[in-house]
Amino acid sequence: MAKNITPRAENYSQWYLDVIAAGQLADHAPVKGCMVIRPTGYAIWEQMQAVLDRKFKETGHVNAYFPVLIPESFIHKEAQHIEGFSPELAVVTHAGGKMLEEPLVVRPTSETVVGHMYAQWVQSYRDLPLLINQWCNVMRWELRTRLFLRTSEFLWQEGHTAHETGAEAEEETLRMLDIYRVFMEDTLAMPVLTGRKSESEKFPGAVHTYSCEALMQDKKALQAGTSHYLGQNFAKAFNITFLDRQNNRTHVHTTSWGASTRLIGALLMTHSDDDGLVLPPRIAPVQVAIVPLYKSEAEKAEVMAFAGQVSRRLSEKLDPLRIRMDTREDQRPADRFFHWVQQGVPLRAEIGPKDVQKGHAMFVRRDTREKVPLSLEQIAVAVPELLTRMQDELFAKAKAFREAHSHRVDSYPEFKRVLEEQGGFLYAHWNGSAEVEAMVKEETKATIRCIPAGGEPAPGKCMVTGEPSLQRVVFSVAY
Amino acid sequence: MAKNITPRAENYSQWYLDVIAAGQLADHAPVKGCMVIRPTGYAIWEQMQAVLDRKFKETGHVNAYFPVLIPESFIHKEAQHIEGFSPELAVVTHAGGKMLEEPLVVRPTSETVVGHMYAQWVQSYRDLPLLINQWCNVMRWELRTRLFLRTSEFLWQEGHTAHETGAEAEEETLRMLDIYRVFMEDTLAMPVLTGRKSESEKFPGAVHTYSCEALMQDKKALQAGTSHYLGQNFAKAFNITFLDRQNNRTHVHTTSWGASTRLIGALLMTHSDDDGLVLPPRIAPVQVAIVPLYKSEAEKAEVMAFAGQVSRRLSEKLDPLRIRMDTREDQRPADRFFHWVQQGVPLRAEIGPKDVQKGHAMFVRRDTREKVPLSLEQIAVAVPELLTRMQDELFAKAKAFREAHSHRVDSYPEFKRVLEEQGGFLYAHWNGSAEVEAMVKEETKATIRCIPAGGEPAPGKCMVTGEPSLQRVVFSVAY
Repeated sequence: MAKNITPRAENYSQWYLDVIAAGQLADHAPVKGCMVIRPTGYAIWEQMQAVLDRKFKETGHVNAYFPVLIPESFIHKEAQHIEGFSPELAVVTHAGGKMLEEPLVVRPTSETVVGHMYAQWVQSYRDLPLLINQWCNVMRWELRTRLFLRTSEFLWQEGHTAHETGAEAEEETLRMLDIYRVFMEDTLAMPVLTGRKSESEKFPGAVHTYSCEALMQDKKALQAGTSHYLGQNFAKAFNITFLDRQNNRTHVHTTSWGASTRLIGALLMTHSDDDGLVLPPRIAPVQVAIVPLYKSEAEKAEVMAFAGQVSRRLSEKLDPLRIRMDTREDQRPADRFFHWVQQGVPLRAEIGPKDVQKGHAMFVRRDTREKVPLSLEQIAVAVPELLTRMQDELFAKAKAFREAHSHRVDSYPEFKRVLEEQGGFLYAHWNGSAEVEAMVKEETKATIRCIPAGGEPAPGKCMVTGEPSLQRVVFSVAY
Repeated sequence: MAKNITPRAENYSQWYLDVIAAGQLADHAPVKGCMVIRPTGYAIWEQMQAVLDRKFKETGHVNAYFPVLIPESFIHKEAQHIEGFSPELAVVTHAGGKMLEEPLVVRPTSETVVGHMYAQWVQSYRDLPLLINQWCNVMRWELRTRLFLRTSEFLWQEGHTAHETGAEAEEETLRMLDIYRVFMEDTLAMPVLTGRKSESEKFPGAVHTYSCEALMQDKKALQAGTSHYLGQNFAKAFNITFLDRQNNRTHVHTTSWGASTRLIGALLMTHSDDDGLVLPPRIAPVQVAIVPLYKSEAEKAEVMAFAGQVSRRLSEKLDPLRIRMDTREDQRPADRFFHWVQQGVPLRAEIGPKDVQKGHAMFVRRDTREKVPLSLEQIAVAVPELLTRMQDELFAKAKAFREAHSHRVDSYPEFKRVLEEQGGFLYAHWNGSAEVEAMVKEETKATIRCIPAGGEPAPGKCMVTGEPSLQRVVFSVAY
């Protein structure tokens, strides 16, 4: 058992922070509520960026950069938007030694400044669709923060698109939601529910918000990515118009969608255990750590030669694995193993003199601790297979966990009992009113995570009022 | 001639802005002095990032992320640092609806907050060297701004390293300077002088600053990247100490080095002409634009089939070229050609019905307008060769321009005359005093760009005072 990590059963919140510290993923910054993303954590973000960026570009999006400072008046132009973001703004009042004529806010999100520029760039239907993404930092001043999950500054990507028709924009909104879902499930091995948000939970300024909702090991929900259909709300606020195919001047329809460094927290809480971080192979910055073990110079020579061969077998593939050779000589083997365990590296290849004699390396799976001796001849094929199996099993395990903690409840007393005793995702009927939603939240802290899409909607009766309901919605206590 | 671009000879500053507008590289943001980097401009930055990031990682550096907001008191901890940056700070005084107890500055650079964290991370010589880089936005409030060259917000990378000894840190400083030089010369086809800055021109807080200096087409110098040996200045200000190999507690030696989106402006002013942007092939986001030309459906079928084959020949290589198929049907051929000209795309492949009959595509070089017909069989080999030749010729041309505008001057009257009549880099002897440097700057606007390294230093006499000088230094009027 890891002495530097509090077990989940004892204190889940402390476990989370301990896993981050042990894996050297992030630190608290000197400014309250902000974080420093350390190299191990940032490398995970770089992997996420690479996969998502490729998917965005494959679907026709390009990257750009909009400024971090936004005139305060911009935020006021969309009524819901200012209401939602006003309490969280950080404001620059002085610059260059002088007080500014108009205060500037550090972007909490960029719909407003993007809208201002799109109004200049879009003239005709020929300029549409406009499909732009940006990778950047944003700032939302938070009182209660937690590394990765809720910090005053975080990194994210925000896509902003403009379209001729509402139907096309809605299609884009759902396309990007699905890109997030596939990324989270296939790359992060993290199953997510997708669906629409209730009116109370949607993005300030959106017509519809859709989200990906994951279930963490403490049976709380985590919103892992959102995609918004903004209708013509921002187009009207920022006067983004175009000459349509009938030569009429019309407002565009816009979308926005984002995923952030919060995903690192989600990934951590989906797979990690009481020994620390567990990373699925597809997202792991280091997939195989090779640990040569020797005591004498003679042993060193033969072990290092063999380790070099192992490394080459894994590197010379068309799609080379991400490997790291651990050449530290000033630490005990147990400490070196533990380092890679707590960094969440999927496979550790231990190579000592006895392994060399037997002509194999001992591969140890991070998640199951299973030990698999593989000869040089087997490595090139068997290691990728092992990693694929591990990826699949991590996803299956997380999905089974979610299924085991998804419950159908039909009455409000049952809802409260199951929520308290079991937690997880509660599927219940709801009459669609904000009042009932607010009451449930007030009394139980559970919110509607989403109105799930797909499948045959089965009507029923609201668990609180008995009024008719078209389909069950998903409640949960959420991060 | 491009009607949307002012010729260089008429108004160089306007030419620069016109090339940016015509190429859709960037726009002025609503906040004064800030910019929006548009997709075409940002794609160039992404290419720069990819090449530099690979070079940083190959030399053992890892990426991380430090917060954008820094307590104002941090900036005051290093005396020269606050003096240098104080006039340029943007200050957050309010957040979350309240006035902050301590104002926070938007980072102008991150030595201070990095130093604060390094003090926590470094305990022993075993933790060194610490080799961290970050890609981020920074803010320096500027009164007179120019897109890419000087903006209140810009994007950059900043490397921050900590070492056991001064010698090792100096070596790192020069290693990174050379990585910049090679990148600028080989990838951007932009020749640069490297050397040390004078005391007056060095980074606030550095012991030594080294820079890469390029010469623009208007014969003004542009500082394109800097690398600083910080000695123990920041280590002492932030108490970054370690137990050395003799078990003594010692301060680390640090470096920092940075290159920014300013490089896009440098690239533009090195190669572009009166028709707009010219990009060297190695940095161009699109290397070949394929433009099929047809008037009837029958022509379209055969032209598009041939264009598809051209595209495949260029894409199926091991190292595929970056190509774009221009399928627009609502614009005249001349407008389509002009679009790619002004985006700076190195090669345009025109394919009309007559070309298909002859079994070739007509490749047009952006820089020389040279037309080269190439058959399908030739393309896979000849196009990369053509791009390599173009890359080499752009570098040679820029280098010849610099040589033609580098002058040795021996007296101050000669200095003033040559500076006024010719501009460029002026190699002159200097007595090393800040007073002479300041007087020359005051009287001529020329500053010491660098004290060049390498070669046999040839002693002489200061052009102003006649006092002894160890070597010539390079003066120029600079951006």
